Order: sequence, then structure tokens, then C-alpha cells
Amino acid sequence: MNAEIISIGTEILLGHIVNTNSSYISRRLAEIGIDVYHHVTVGDNEKRLYELIKSAMARSDIVITTGGLGPTIDDITLFVLSRVSGRPLILKKKISALINAHFKKRHIAMPRNNLRQAYIPKGASWIANNTGTAPGLIIKVDGKIIIALPGPPGEMAPIFDKAVLPYLRRQSRCKYVILSRTLKTTGLAESRLHDKVKKIMRISGETTLGIYAHPGQVDLIVTSKAKNISLAKKRISFIEKGIRKKLGSLVFGADNQTLEENTLKALRGKTIAIAESCTGGLIASRITDIAGSSKNLLCSVVAYSNRSKIRLLAVPDSMIKQHGAVSRQVAKAMAIGIRGLSNADIGISTTGIAGPGGATAKKPVGLVYIALSAGQKTYVKRYYFTNDRKTIKSRASQAALDMLRLHILR
Amino acid sequence: MNAEIISIGTEILLGHIVNTNSSYISRRLAEIGIDVYHHVTVGDNEKRLYELIKSAMARSDIVITTGGLGPTIDDITLFVLSRVSGRPLILKKKISALINAHFKKRHIAMPRNNLRQAYIPKGASWIANNTGTAPGLIIKVDGKIIIALPGPPGEMAPIFDKAVLPYLRRQSRCKYVILSRTLKTTGLAESRLHDKVKKIMRISGETTLGIYAHPGQVDLIVTSKAKNISLAKKRISFIEKGIRKKLGSLVFGADNQTLEENTLKALRGKTIAIAESCTGGLIASRITDIAGSSKNLLCSVVAYSNRSKIRLLAVPDSMIKQHGAVSRQVAKAMAIGIRGLSNADIGISTTGIAGPGGATAKKPVGLVYIALSAGQKTYVKRYYFTNDRKTIKSRASQAALDMLRLHILR
Repeated sequence: MNAEIISIGTEILLGHIVNTNSSYISRRLAEIGIDVYHHVTVGDNEKRLYELIKSAMARSDIVITTGGLGPTIDDITLFVLSRVSGRPLILKKKISALINAHFKKRHIAMPRNNLRQAYIPKGASWIANNTGTAPGLIIKVDGKIIIALPGPPGEMAPIFDKAVLPYLRRQSRCKYVILSRTLKTTGLAESRLHDKVKKIMRISGETTLGIYAHPGQVDLIVTSKAKNISLAKKRISFIEKGIRKKLGSLVFGADNQTLEENTLKALRGKTIAIAESCTGGLIASRITDIAGSSKNLLCSVVAYSNRSKIRLLAVPDSMIKQHGAVSRQVAKAMAIGIRGLSNADIGISTTGIAGPGGATAKKPVGLVYIALSAGQKTYVKRYYFTNDRKTIKSRASQAALDMLRLHILR
Repeated sequence: MNAEIISIGTEILLGHIVNTNSSYISRRLAEIGIDVYHHVTVGDNEKRLYELIKSAMARSDIVITTGGLGPTIDDITLFVLSRVSGRPLILKKKISALINAHFKKRHIAMPRNNLRQAYIPKGASWIANNTGTAPGLIIKVDGKIIIALPGPPGEMAPIFDKAVLPYLRRQSRCKYVILSRTLKTTGLAESRLHDKVKKIMRISGETTLGIYAHPGQVDLIVTSKAKNISLAKKRISFIEKGIRKKLGSLVFGADNQTLEENTLKALRGKTIAIAESCTGGLIASRITDIAGSSKNLLCSVVAYSNRSKIRLLAVPDSMIKQHGAVSRQVAKAMAIGIRGLSNADIGISTTGIAGPGGATAKKPVGLVYIALSAGQKTYVKRYYFTNDRKTIKSRASQAALDMLRLHILR
């Protein structure tokens, strides 16, 4: 079976938002062996949407739309689906009750407009939206399957994963599966990583290895097309072993795992505290994105001003005067200082020049010192990051988390 | 004139990469008044690409393709363009010299495969690629304009800006321009905001108002199609005034401005300090994303554990025991405590249940108290946020920044 994805929204055609739904849905469909041959995007225009759904039905078995299910007048998907399927829109009391409950939970009265979202084409199946108000819909028309999902990714993905994917898996009875496994690395440039794995990349048959670089991270994606899941898993596992043997601790995680998540896992019972200057709270924020991080993270101080470095972290005033706030010495003193303040097992600190201002002849924008203090030892690493302020913050937080992870692994 | 954008690449259909080219090109075309009604994505498949270009030519004046111009066997755009235009591929020596020079600069011998990229349909115009090897192409076929661009955004965008955009501006002799202005709000649900501006939405003529919701933020986008830029600006400015009059301080910024940026601007000389529990450093990180924030942000403490609330922020132990760490009282004490620690003019604090664990019968996941202390006064607001841990953190940071902004404005 094959599917086509139609994204609806003038804001996409105007380039105001980037379409991430199509890639999400495609990735998930590939896993259950459903081919996607076309992505299409159209604005909030009834005539063009009608034509696109019709042409999609002519060439694809499954048509998945995202967007246009909102409560306002420019949300047209329900009307067009009614026309395409030749079925009238009818009010579903259960849906309106759910929409009501959604607003009640947030202590807000339901706006009347939202009642529009409870009208669906007669005979359509619907899937409750637990993170928003518009339900997902499944309609069979002329032997084709039409699925309509809300546009916001945070509403689309849960509905897709919970109900649409299992439904399509049952419908497709497909002859092969495509599985992918992403291995994530940090600390090595794409081309250097490529050199390390290029022999492994020459894989025969239906397993491929791709390299994708992001700021501060390079991913290796192993993809296998096979008769069944267990065969695909076996092939991927074979390649994964080869890569891990070659790269060792450079691989910090796989698939949806994040660096912060796996660093935290590695900590086990150990406690940490962070003193952030140039990263400005980003390391703490990434760590606290993970549920249960309160067990490990005792406290974090964003010591942006010299005064807070001196008062909270006991960095000697004279040291800042002599070496500057961005220096090996101050980074070290901050890591020791935050341990003293918190009694944590491990102290981490960052100090650097995130830019665009603040650089000197000897200290360019992107210069960052990261220190780690544990047991009787404190060590400092120096980095030169490039790019804008946010990217430098992000790369520095990535380096600090990885320094922590590698420290624990050793 | 109208244009259609075709993105080529199986990696997009598999969801391995997100398509950002279409939104980039759309945004630029809108500025010169060229409408985009369709985005289409297709894999590295000759037959399907041929069909898509044919159907695009039937309904659009300009067809822009991105991707499929690489040096490998699965790059098929040149063959398909040759078929579509009925013109043979011929070797352009100037292009092959440029490709050679590109590799020489990087001290690498040119791989033989790259010579493929020097073959273009006879009679086509080409545009040098200064950041890669595949040139851009312009071909006229049956009165339609076909433009082929390389897929990597870092190669596509320079070619598009330097040569394609000026070319299309001349071709279209366009009689109008399209300008957009985004007004950003927070603190009010999409449908409530819609109610407030619905009278303004019934704008006559060629100015439109769209509403787009993101977590914790709702944008109003005013778009005007007019004979010239100054007329478009005048119309937008008229609508903007109406919206601002109606919404007042609900509008926190416009276009690329962020809430953190404008909150910081409003602060002027005032200093702040933050005590974050459930937001875990996110507020500080957002503020420090802005260059120059060190002038205002004295320090931030992530007081995740009760111990750090007691020790660093002087929250009474008995208060936590009596009311719990997530309470109106503790939020207030934290905001006062961080002011005491830092001597800042304004103290802000957050305490809440980000989930998924930690909820009780009376305190659900998403319950967050935010306090602000300034002068002799400290006040606390209670929120019920929904969704996952990261979204709750994000919404809470948004609410805290907005509370700070509104406090200063008053």
C-alpha cells in the first residue's frame, strides 16, 4: 500500500511555518512498510484542496491530511471532506463533550466557535485528541482510506501514534518492513566521523547507512528493508555493533534518546550542581527536561555577573581581576564553588564569550571554558565554538553534558 | 504569476530530513508578489517526477524544483528536465571548470562522478554555485518557466537570492507586492483572541488577517497585497493600529521579536533575579539568549531541591512542610528570597508540577505558581497548564516572562 500526505495551511505556502508533520508521518509509515510517493501542500482554499484530495485518491491508497481542522472560518477541511465523501456533517455529542472538558480542565469557558470541531462527516470514525480539541478522522471513500489529523504537531503526533498507525498496520498487511536506527554522536566533525565509518558504509543489500550533521551532533542512520521486523532488526543490530565497536563512547545514544537523558541515566545515584555563566541556564534547563532529574540535580546557579560569581560561588575577586571572568582559573573556581554551595558529588561550570559583544584580541567570541570538579580533582577544557549566540550556548551545553557523561563512564 | 515548488528526494519522503527549502522559497516569492498555491515532494523516481513537472506546468506559470542535481546515480533531475523540455543534455565546459576549481580549493581531486553535473539541457541558462558544485538552471518550455536548484539549503538559497529572484521579478513584471506583519500575543486562547479581532478580520479588499496558535503564543498575521510596497505598508499599518487598540498590552511584539527580547527591552535599567523550580533554568536561558542581558539579569538559581530552596532562598522549612513546595506561599517566599540574595530590583519565581510524576489529588500535573516581587509588593498567580513536561516548562516560562513584562508596563 502507498500513502500520500496533504498538508493544509496558507501559512505553510507563505513560508511562515516549516512543515514538520509530513516528515514525521513519513518516518512512521516507513516503519510499517507503507511507501510514501508524494507530499503535497495547499492553502486554506476549498477548490484546490478538493482537487488535490481527488488526485491523491486517484494515485494513492491512503490519503492523510494535516491541518484545517481548527475552530475558525478559514479551517475548511471538514467541509471539503464532506464534499469528497458525499456525506453530510453531523454533530457528535461525545466530541463536543470532550471539547467542553478540555476547556474545563484549563478553567476556561468553551468558546462557541470550538463547537464547529464536533461536526464530522456521517459514518466517519473519530479519534479523541488528548492535547487539543479537533479529533482525528478516518473515512473510507471508494475503497480509499482518508485520514484527517489536526495541524499542530503536538496534537497530530499522539493521535497518529495511538490510533492511526495501528489501524494502518492492520489495513496494509504489507510484505516488507523498513526499520531505521539512529546512532547519535557528539564531539567529532562529520567528515572525521565519515572517515571512521566509511568501510562500514559499503554495506551490500538492502541496508544503508546515512550521515546527518546538526550543530553539535552528528547522527548515523542505519536503515534496513526486510521481509519482517526480526530480520530487519537482526541486520541493523549487526551494523550497529560494528559502528559501536569502531566509535566506542563517541556514540552517546540511539533513536529518541537525548544527550541529557543518557547523561542523567549514567549518573545513577550521583548528585550534580551547575554554575553557568555563558550557557545562562541552558544546561540546567536541558537536564530538567528529563522527568526525575530532581534526584540528581541539587541546584544550578546562573552566575552571569562577577558579583554573583564572587558572592555565591566564592570565586576570588582578585582572580577575576588578574585572569578575567572568562579564564581557565575562574572556570575551575566556579566548579569547585558550586560543589561547596551544594554538597554535590560533581560540580560543572561554564564561562565564555557567547557574543556578539565582549570579545578581545586574545579572547574571541566562541571561546568557552568548561570545568568539572569531582572527588579531589578538577579539570578544565577549552573550546572555540563558532556561529551565533544561541548556537554557541547550545554547543557549549552539549560539550558540558558530554564531558559529564564521559567522566562518569571512565 | 504563480509558482509551484517541487522538492525532490527520497530522504524527504522517508522523513529523514525536514523540507525547509519550500518555505524559504515561498517567503521570498511572496515578497515579489508571486503566489504559491502548491508545494509538492517526490522521491528520486523518474516517472513520478516527470508526471509532477507536467501537472505543475499545466496549472502554474513557474515551476521551481530543488534537489536531485547531485553527482550520484539516483540524482535524476537533469534527465527528467531533458525529457520535459525535449532537449538533449550537453556538456558545458565552463561548468566543469568551475566544479574542478571547487575541489582544487579544498585540496581534493575531482571525483569523476561530479562531471555529470556539468551536463545541462541544451539552451538552458545556468547560474554558478559558489557553495557547491551543481549549478542552478533556468529553462523556458511551452511558455512556462522551469527553474532547477540544488537541494542543500546552503547552496539553494544563495543561487535563489542572487539570480533567480531578480530574474523572476523582471519576468513577472508583477503588478503587486505581498507584505506580511506578524503581531504576537500570549496569555489568551486562540478562540478568545479570535472573538476579540473577528470584526477586524472582516477586512475588505486584499488585506487578510490570519490567526496561528503555538504553545503559549498566538500570532496574528496581517498580509497585504498591493500595487506597491508603500501602499501595502500603509494598509498593514492601519490594521495593526486597530488590532493594537483592541488588544493593548496583549501584543508583546512583532515579526522576529521574541517575548524575552521585548521584556528585556522594557526593563531598561532595572535589574532582575530569578528563582526557578519547575522551569528548571529555562527562563534564565531564554533571557540569556539575548545579547546584553547581563546588564539586567544579576543571577538565577535553579532551586530544584527543598534543601536549596531553604538554604539559598531562605524559604522556611516549616512553610514547605505546611503548604508543600508547590504552593502560593513558597512561590512568594522564593521571589522574596532571590531578591534578598541578589539585591535585584525585581525577583521572579516559579514552583509547580511539570510531571509526569509528582501529582496529588489536589495538585495536578501542570499546576504552577509564579510570583513576582518588586518594591514593597509581591504577588502570585496560579496557572493550570496541560500537555507534556517540556510544554509545561515552556508555557510556565512564557507566563513568567509575560508577568514581568506586564508588571513593568504598568
